[in-house]
Amino acid sequence: MRWAEGFIAVDWGTSNRRAYRLDSSGRCEDEFEDHQGVLTIPADGFSDAVAEIRQRLGDRPLLLAGMIGSNRGWKEAPYVPCPAGIDDLVAKLVWVGDREAIVPGVSYVGQGRGDVMRGEEVQLLGAVAAGMIDPMGLVCHPGTHNKWATLSQGKIHRFRTVMTGELFNLLKEHSILSDLLQGEVDVNDAFRQAVRHSIDNATLPADLFGLRAGVLLGQMKKEDAVSFASGLLIGADIRIGLSIPTSVQIAVLGRPELTRLYAAAIGAAGRDAVELDGEKCFLAGINEIAKRIDA
Amino acid sequence: MRWAEGFIAVDWGTSNRRAYRLDSSGRCEDEFEDHQGVLTIPADGFSDAVAEIRQRLGDRPLLLAGMIGSNRGWKEAPYVPCPAGIDDLVAKLVWVGDREAIVPGVSYVGQGRGDVMRGEEVQLLGAVAAGMIDPMGLVCHPGTHNKWATLSQGKIHRFRTVMTGELFNLLKEHSILSDLLQGEVDVNDAFRQAVRHSIDNATLPADLFGLRAGVLLGQMKKEDAVSFASGLLIGADIRIGLSIPTSVQIAVLGRPELTRLYAAAIGAAGRDAVELDGEKCFLAGINEIAKRIDA
Repeated sequence: MRWAEGFIAVDWGTSNRRAYRLDSSGRCEDEFEDHQGVLTIPADGFSDAVAEIRQRLGDRPLLLAGMIGSNRGWKEAPYVPCPAGIDDLVAKLVWVGDREAIVPGVSYVGQGRGDVMRGEEVQLLGAVAAGMIDPMGLVCHPGTHNKWATLSQGKIHRFRTVMTGELFNLLKEHSILSDLLQGEVDVNDAFRQAVRHSIDNATLPADLFGLRAGVLLGQMKKEDAVSFASGLLIGADIRIGLSIPTSVQIAVLGRPELTRLYAAAIGAAGRDAVELDGEKCFLAGINEIAKRIDA
Repeated sequence: MRWAEGFIAVDWGTSNRRAYRLDSSGRCEDEFEDHQGVLTIPADGFSDAVAEIRQRLGDRPLLLAGMIGSNRGWKEAPYVPCPAGIDDLVAKLVWVGDREAIVPGVSYVGQGRGDVMRGEEVQLLGAVAAGMIDPMGLVCHPGTHNKWATLSQGKIHRFRTVMTGELFNLLKEHSILSDLLQGEVDVNDAFRQAVRHSIDNATLPADLFGLRAGVLLGQMKKEDAVSFASGLLIGADIRIGLSIPTSVQIAVLGRPELTRLYAAAIGAAGRDAVELDGEKCFLAGINEIAKRIDA
């Protein structure tokens, strides 16, 4: 079996999955996205869920990445420790059958802490393999759990997760700030002011309440609150990600609506950032892995 | 009408209310607590809710404090600006009828920010009036929204809210950390280690995810996670509250299960704290207000 003759790639997360049929040149011929994330599928339901993907996209080999390899997924793919390059992922693929492989996540232990990722490694190392980012650079991957990854010689050398996206969603959906956070986030003055405030002041849990007080006391316009809150959270995130002074290239990859915010915030911190579409990076990474299975 | 002949005091919060029948010496003769917080009562339902309190505790004058005076409550009691002492609260009581008064909250504007409290002011100023705390001290009032208040000449001079309790509850109830946070928080090594970490490192949104990674990678015992998470959040709170060096007395007042944690965390930061029962402070404050209505 030659993977390079075409296969199906799936980026299978906690709450969503995205599946692509790739041709022999790695181009996407067909795709779909739905909400059948790992948590929506019963433990014994993954064979059926995979069969359904083949019904929709064709009977091809399958390469799966993301939370599908977690202990809540189809089959657990143990983390590959840092430093982790694309060959390390290929060497530790977990095979469910002859034609179904799961890409492992990556772990980091050091500096008195530990960290894990599942799914982002394909995008990060795909961007490296495709020459889209500096193999010695710093990469920011915003999402539910933003990852700051330091690359060295094209491998993930070290990384740190900041749960910015999840905190924003918790505040938006369940907190006392909820009614203030229902609009769209804009890169406006409120956003930039909040980013700079959080970069200069490590007072996030106070500043979030201050937002509500500011609206109650007429100091802040209600319609600015959502951008201000996002700026506070992203600024605190960037404060952590850029805490070690570095002059290397900063790349931000992920969903464009998030990379836009992070690139603007990194700009407010006085640095430039290259923005990359996470989906393109994922396809570059998963094609590279398939190529190396054949090799 | 003489309030000092006995009245009913109600500490009426967002999700709970606690009502006390106080005799002519200010002692509690009867009381009850229930979940009829302000948010559970329809806008036109407060007269009935108040009538029910009188049915249970007797037909006496009523002094109400807390969110009952907010724009979601019975009648809005505008904030009294800092510096705010107990006489300022008495002067700005909002009367619904001849026998029903609502204690206003307190606001602070300065240092480029604004802040608000409703309910804590009765406890803080009650503790001052009863001589339980230093009238020039620093007071910490943990709860859903912890307040750090600087007193000056017995008035609330300045204060800052940190939404520690709410963040902990959001993480416990709705986040990816939820299954790790279901136990009870202990003042143990994990708690103290996390407090010290957060006092030294302003990296809370990363450390919270690190907790999950630590458990996944076998670096942290699952049963330590809830105390560690609480320690991280309370440590970050104390980092903010003690950011201005001060040698004044620190008093922690509120519910004993929370003051215990904050006093231990302040201890881990190398300071001592006096612990006071918030309910006693509330009764001291509300009796003092009633006395001054008569005066």
